[in-house]
Amino acid sequence: MPETLTLYTAKLCPYAQRVEIALAETKLPFTRYEIDLGNKPDWFTPKVNAAGKIPAVAYGGPIVPPESPSPESQKIAESLVLLEFIADISGGALLPKDPVLRARVRLFIDVVSNKITPAVIGFAFQGKPVDDLWTAIEAIQPLILGKYAVGDEFTIADAALIPFIARGKIVLKYDIGKFEVGVGLKAYEILQTDPRFEKFRRYIADVEARDSFKNTFDEEYLKEWYTTRFARN
Amino acid sequence: MPETLTLYTAKLCPYAQRVEIALAETKLPFTRYEIDLGNKPDWFTPKVNAAGKIPAVAYGGPIVPPESPSPESQKIAESLVLLEFIADISGGALLPKDPVLRARVRLFIDVVSNKITPAVIGFAFQGKPVDDLWTAIEAIQPLILGKYAVGDEFTIADAALIPFIARGKIVLKYDIGKFEVGVGLKAYEILQTDPRFEKFRRYIADVEARDSFKNTFDEEYLKEWYTTRFARN
Ligand SMILES: N[C@@H](CCC(=O)N[C@@H](CS)C(=O)NCC(=O)O)C(=O)O
Ligand SMILES: N[C@@H](CCC(=O)N[C@@H](CS)C(=O)NCC(=O)O)C(=O)O
Repeated sequence: MPETLTLYTAKLCPYAQRVEIALAETKLPFTRYEIDLGNKPDWFTPKVNAAGKIPAVAYGGPIVPPESPSPESQKIAESLVLLEFIADISGGALLPKDPVLRARVRLFIDVVSNKITPAVIGFAFQGKPVDDLWTAIEAIQPLILGKYAVGDEFTIADAALIPFIARGKIVLKYDIGKFEVGVGLKAYEILQTDPRFEKFRRYIADVEARDSFKNTFDEEYLKEWYTTRFARN
Repeated sequence: MPETLTLYTAKLCPYAQRVEIALAETKLPFTRYEIDLGNKPDWFTPKVNAAGKIPAVAYGGPIVPPESPSPESQKIAESLVLLEFIADISGGALLPKDPVLRARVRLFIDVVSNKITPAVIGFAFQGKPVDDLWTAIEAIQPLILGKYAVGDEFTIADAALIPFIARGKIVLKYDIGKFEVGVGLKAYEILQTDPRFEKFRRYIADVEARDSFKNTFDEEYLKEWYTTRFARN
């Protein structure tokens, strides 16, 4: 019998969606526990993740309710560490066998962390120019080697990227980022039609078509949440 | 026969030393090619790493002189990607088999990247307070689980950390960082004697005692290089 696995997560969090996608792809059984980030339960930080962040996993140990994590389970956090962990426990899914392709997966993720993520967070929350996204896409587009990031199999590289692009698209499409009115819509148009990004768009469509993405992404909920967040500011 | 492997590296670079240590631990055969960072060969950026950085590896393809890399070899860069790559091609060295311990290795490296590296670069080159090092050591010390980072076997976690600590020690001991005269010496004294850091010190001594570290670290060369660098500023 596999070890028990509880995922502490939140629908709004792109880091957490990475892990939900990976778990969905492997079909490993797990318990999903939604954390209200606006009102985190008292037990979460002391018992699950001292950094107070999701995603976090409790792995192994006795079967317990998610609200009473056992001291005997292993607690693991950080989305990119968890992606590798899920690949490790899945027995061969989500990472190619070839060491060179595994390195390509990790180089792709490096560009996600250093270019894509800061660009999306930048225009959504920090008033940075939307144009940073074009630079980021131009950096990652040449790294796309097949239908998915490194070939015809879905890997943790795809799971690492898509939550940020999907959220970026909502922010642009509904014009609700930290920018002047209309800037988002105009950028959305570019993202959806500019011939420069054709390869990237086709790739994103293939990733978004997977059940693992569709079943872990709630566009209405996110739209509502971003709208509320910006109405408040 | 294993694929050929050429490592483009430089004695002064902590990122490159990570990879040299990992290769030394696995005893994989490879060709070491020193790049003069002050005078990079013309062929390096176009033929090996478009980012112009070392460490970089050429893997596979025909046997060629390092100065004429073959278009048929795979080019791989980024020290942390290369550590995983070397573990992958070594057939079981440098990473535990247990998925939870593998996650502990990657969490340790995450703290190296986000705390230790910025602290050392901060006081050495950027005029940031030496005290950031104490905060960083306090963050990583509880993660040390055995003689080495995650137990009694040496892993890529140890290889990722040690080049930065070893360089930080030189900068402090010879008082040649970006700080007032005497600040380095005083901090070196704290690092070497403060009871708070006892566990960390013992761990560092064990890592520094390994041939893989000793044979890839040239204290005199680095001391000279740091001194010149700061004399220039
Ligand atoms: N580096 C972390 C980032 C995770 C993160 O920032 N999560 C946010 C939600 S998207 C969080 O839990 N914030 C709660 C808090 O900081 O209180 C990862 O990759 O998992
Ligand atoms: N993120 C890279 C950093 C490598 C790096 O910064 N290398 C420096 C030397 S320590 C370099 O090659 N600099 C040359 C240049 O930028 O021209 C890694 O982890 O490998």
